[in-house]
Amino acid sequence: MERTIDLASKAVLQIAEREGYSTIWDRFAAQVPQCGFGELGTCCRICLQGPCRIDPFGEGAQLGACGATADTIVARNLGRAIAAGTAAHSGHAKHLAHTLLRSAQGQAADYPIKDEAKLKAVAARLGILADGKAIDELAKEVAQAALADFSEKQTPVAWAVTNVTQGRVETFLKHGVVPTGIDSAISEVMHRTSYGCDADPVNLLLGGVKCALADFAGMHMATDLADILFGTPKPVVTQANLGVLKPDAVNIAVHGHNPVLSDIIAQVAHELDQEARAAGAPAGVNLVGICCTGNEVLMRHGIPSATHSVSQELAVLTGALEAIVVDYQCIMPGLATAAECYHTRLITTMPIVKISGATHIEFSEEKARETALKIIRQGIEAFKQRDPKKVNIPPHQSTAVAGFSTEAIVGALSQVNAEDPLKPLIDNIVNGNVLGVCLFAGCNNVRVPQDSGYIAMAKELASKNVLLLATGCGAGAFARQGLLTGDATSEYAGDGLKAVLTAVGQAAGLGGPLPLVLHMGSCVDNTRAADVAVAVANKLGVDLDRLPVVASAPEATTEKAIAIGTWAVAAGLPTHVGVVPPVLGGPTVAKVLTEDLKSLFGGYFIVETDPVTAAEKLLGAIEERRRGLAI
Amino acid sequence: MERTIDLASKAVLQIAEREGYSTIWDRFAAQVPQCGFGELGTCCRICLQGPCRIDPFGEGAQLGACGATADTIVARNLGRAIAAGTAAHSGHAKHLAHTLLRSAQGQAADYPIKDEAKLKAVAARLGILADGKAIDELAKEVAQAALADFSEKQTPVAWAVTNVTQGRVETFLKHGVVPTGIDSAISEVMHRTSYGCDADPVNLLLGGVKCALADFAGMHMATDLADILFGTPKPVVTQANLGVLKPDAVNIAVHGHNPVLSDIIAQVAHELDQEARAAGAPAGVNLVGICCTGNEVLMRHGIPSATHSVSQELAVLTGALEAIVVDYQCIMPGLATAAECYHTRLITTMPIVKISGATHIEFSEEKARETALKIIRQGIEAFKQRDPKKVNIPPHQSTAVAGFSTEAIVGALSQVNAEDPLKPLIDNIVNGNVLGVCLFAGCNNVRVPQDSGYIAMAKELASKNVLLLATGCGAGAFARQGLLTGDATSEYAGDGLKAVLTAVGQAAGLGGPLPLVLHMGSCVDNTRAADVAVAVANKLGVDLDRLPVVASAPEATTEKAIAIGTWAVAAGLPTHVGVVPPVLGGPTVAKVLTEDLKSLFGGYFIVETDPVTAAEKLLGAIEERRRGLAI
Repeated sequence: MERTIDLASKAVLQIAEREGYSTIWDRFAAQVPQCGFGELGTCCRICLQGPCRIDPFGEGAQLGACGATADTIVARNLGRAIAAGTAAHSGHAKHLAHTLLRSAQGQAADYPIKDEAKLKAVAARLGILADGKAIDELAKEVAQAALADFSEKQTPVAWAVTNVTQGRVETFLKHGVVPTGIDSAISEVMHRTSYGCDADPVNLLLGGVKCALADFAGMHMATDLADILFGTPKPVVTQANLGVLKPDAVNIAVHGHNPVLSDIIAQVAHELDQEARAAGAPAGVNLVGICCTGNEVLMRHGIPSATHSVSQELAVLTGALEAIVVDYQCIMPGLATAAECYHTRLITTMPIVKISGATHIEFSEEKARETALKIIRQGIEAFKQRDPKKVNIPPHQSTAVAGFSTEAIVGALSQVNAEDPLKPLIDNIVNGNVLGVCLFAGCNNVRVPQDSGYIAMAKELASKNVLLLATGCGAGAFARQGLLTGDATSEYAGDGLKAVLTAVGQAAGLGGPLPLVLHMGSCVDNTRAADVAVAVANKLGVDLDRLPVVASAPEATTEKAIAIGTWAVAAGLPTHVGVVPPVLGGPTVAKVLTEDLKSLFGGYFIVETDPVTAAEKLLGAIEERRRGLAI
Repeated sequence: MERTIDLASKAVLQIAEREGYSTIWDRFAAQVPQCGFGELGTCCRICLQGPCRIDPFGEGAQLGACGATADTIVARNLGRAIAAGTAAHSGHAKHLAHTLLRSAQGQAADYPIKDEAKLKAVAARLGILADGKAIDELAKEVAQAALADFSEKQTPVAWAVTNVTQGRVETFLKHGVVPTGIDSAISEVMHRTSYGCDADPVNLLLGGVKCALADFAGMHMATDLADILFGTPKPVVTQANLGVLKPDAVNIAVHGHNPVLSDIIAQVAHELDQEARAAGAPAGVNLVGICCTGNEVLMRHGIPSATHSVSQELAVLTGALEAIVVDYQCIMPGLATAAECYHTRLITTMPIVKISGATHIEFSEEKARETALKIIRQGIEAFKQRDPKKVNIPPHQSTAVAGFSTEAIVGALSQVNAEDPLKPLIDNIVNGNVLGVCLFAGCNNVRVPQDSGYIAMAKELASKNVLLLATGCGAGAFARQGLLTGDATSEYAGDGLKAVLTAVGQAAGLGGPLPLVLHMGSCVDNTRAADVAVAVANKLGVDLDRLPVVASAPEATTEKAIAIGTWAVAAGLPTHVGVVPPVLGGPTVAKVLTEDLKSLFGGYFIVETDPVTAAEKLLGAIEERRRGLAI
């Protein structure tokens, strides 16, 4: 199987092959064939009597020792994946809530409130009155409201119900899936999936949906608080792919998900340019991003993006990376092994993420700048050990226009119609210039040739005039492959879409069309896209489940992606997954996810590994929605 | 392999065999051989690139696709098991906290405060002043303190640090394992074990310990609040084993874990005796218990115990069970299949536990009595469909003396020394009449002949003068096998132990020795035993890790047992497990659990499947502790 369609990754993989370094693709190859029970989701390890496995051919065991059916096992496993995804996103959000609270209380001087307008908007949405309050007081109240959302309480999770349409809230209430606490929703799933508890697959799946709505809340909170602390993104132009590493600079990558450290590093990196030059790097410090921490600093500072997801080790294998600074999530332990073969320092910073072989420099908000400088100096120190003979930076990089927060998109639209910014978008959806909207989210997955799913689907959908949004490693794929540009719009967009993107781009002063794909941020920023959909729905007076809006994760990997997909479905979106999740062993579960959820929430899962067929299915879903709206 | 040593279970298994009904033993047999990767803990399904598996023979893959080692995979899986166990116990506690709050607010008339002394004791321990407050006000404050413990906060989980020695608190602080919220500790484990997060096995294990201390807190809270609402247990005499089912009664079993429903059923059951008689059951309603809900009503109402754990289906197969009412945890879905073959109604009552094929009658505190009566009437209705030809109640039952809460034990000791109740116990430990103390906890496990591990170990330890405590399904095993009696003391206790149990039993007015094993309650009540140990430690002025106190789970099954074992180790206890947990695939993890934790916490795991050898190892651990104290 082809490993990647990315030229830079291909080039570095040749080095790996030549030097005998193993990468994720080699390790994955060593795992194949993988366990069929695990792939089908029918392996249960929830008690010490297991593992129990259900024979998919109906010949061997059909029940676990306790009597659990395949559907029960699959639904429990899926529930736990959603719980883990929710825990990751909301852990990130909770971290920022604490940072905001410290900032408001004057305990974190490096974290001033950067975006007062966003703070006020979030406060207003939560029903917190801003009148006459000092900014710090308002920030404190928002932070406290955020922290309160983690605890079980009598009222719904505020971030879950204030960021969707009223129709969605009613649907959620009707099906009993409104979470009353984020952490408590996670605990509830862990409880109900434990030995001898919930055994009804539909009840388990509804429990999963409830937790996924807590995930939605956590994600939205993370985005809101990051914008308040670090600024709401505005369009930026930068570069993406391994070619952004500079042979004559101290190259430092920030990797993980939370901007709480990386944004400070981005703020201070150039203060040490002189030290870097003194160490022999004439270009000073070159900060680059990997994965979603990379997206965070790309969106707010235009920091170039080195790479994402499956290819993260390849950044080390260029031989030109001095340090890779990580916070949490999607950090492959294989990085430590790669780093050992080079001069690269792998630096962990969070108490809940340590990696054998890495250097741990614990981060705290109180000493943010100090820690950031210390970490950068580690890179400068490492530069002195760089072996020039080992440096192989592939020449590939693409221009990427990013920074499309909801506010930035509405801002661009308001250049067309200042009075009623959404009107141009809605008018063009109604007139068919824009057939519908697709949000691309998710990861790369070693099972799929890197980036191939995203690119094939995007080209197909864009040619049919579907407006494309992207986040996370999906946005990274588009960045690498040059689709975050106006040129890509000119090349791939259908006539209607091209006209709209050009008109808005011109009006917004970009001197050309908007990019073919609008980069909305890191994977935690998926709710930015939901905000756009909610605004359109509210303006049209229809609920989300009637909009011609779909979502796709062509190369999903993490449990976070499973949680996101679940809330996207609950939000009413037909949601495509391009890798087969471990649910096929449970026929009821598979049917509920792909069919029955439609009657409950409007949304449903589409599992399709072929990208062109997947695009056709999403187009079909969009057309169905358009017919429903009689447009 | 022998399936059980229990005569009643053997008798019903013959029926099952004759009639062709499959039970857990048959379903387990169909699962054998089980997956070796799963048994070793080296199967990772944490992302959609998996499942990845590590070859234990070093020939195949040694790393997951992401680069995770066997140790990382094993530690992550173990962490998630602890999180699930914590979620189960603390979900139970949270449920009771809400009940107590409703009770205090006058919203739950069926739940008066039954034990004001316990309420005051718990309040005092939490630092809540009782002076002059009405009982409802105090109950409200305790309930609110309980609920606050679930949320992340600046201070430690109150129930985690107010119920151990000061030395333990210092040790926990030193190793960074003090939880600041129960639900947040669960979420933190789910986050850190998700894709690309914590990859350091030791850091992961310490994260697991932190969560396990949240489990300790949740368990202790569950016990405290149940005692406040339903009364602190006092010694009761009852019967145990399937022979408690009556041929001429409407037999109704309560099963699961939380007394919130079952205690009400126990309170009202006999109100419907007349209706039962009218339906043709001269003996009226016969309430029996299964698993830990059974233990709850046994401890407080002397309700006989039908059976526990692996043999729960056999209660249905007697043909004499009209209804089996379940709340949550350890309810095998196989019960539904068994019930379908008989007239038995399986009734689920909790929103988070539904079972395909069961009748769902949702419980609420507001309508507790009403729901309890409705459920009992279901049993009376079912009685009319009972097929007398199918009734086969095995004649086996044993007398069981139970109800040994900490307060009851101290109460009995105070009959010996009213001024200083602990002195007789401590004196006898010092003089060697009591060599040490062993708490038996945990489940039955289909891998072990039912009850065999408990009985063999108990006889061995008792003969060496070890004082035995038991909870949960372990206590159930001892109840069935007649070890919760003074007769067993006479038969199996060593001379020193016999003298002590006899002296205390006589002084307490039992007319004979205390039982060989003291039944302290359901599995959530394990902290009652910890309380005894803490009281002894505080009196002696030494920390828990120096006491000749050990714990054993010879037939552990659930993730809850893993969580309990982990906090027992953190509390300083040498802790035996009689089934091999899925950790052997991670050599570092296995070494940390069985050796290195000793230097951190004093406690450590002993994994030993042979019960006599296990008893010898525990005796060795006790002797080592005695030498340390120079006694």
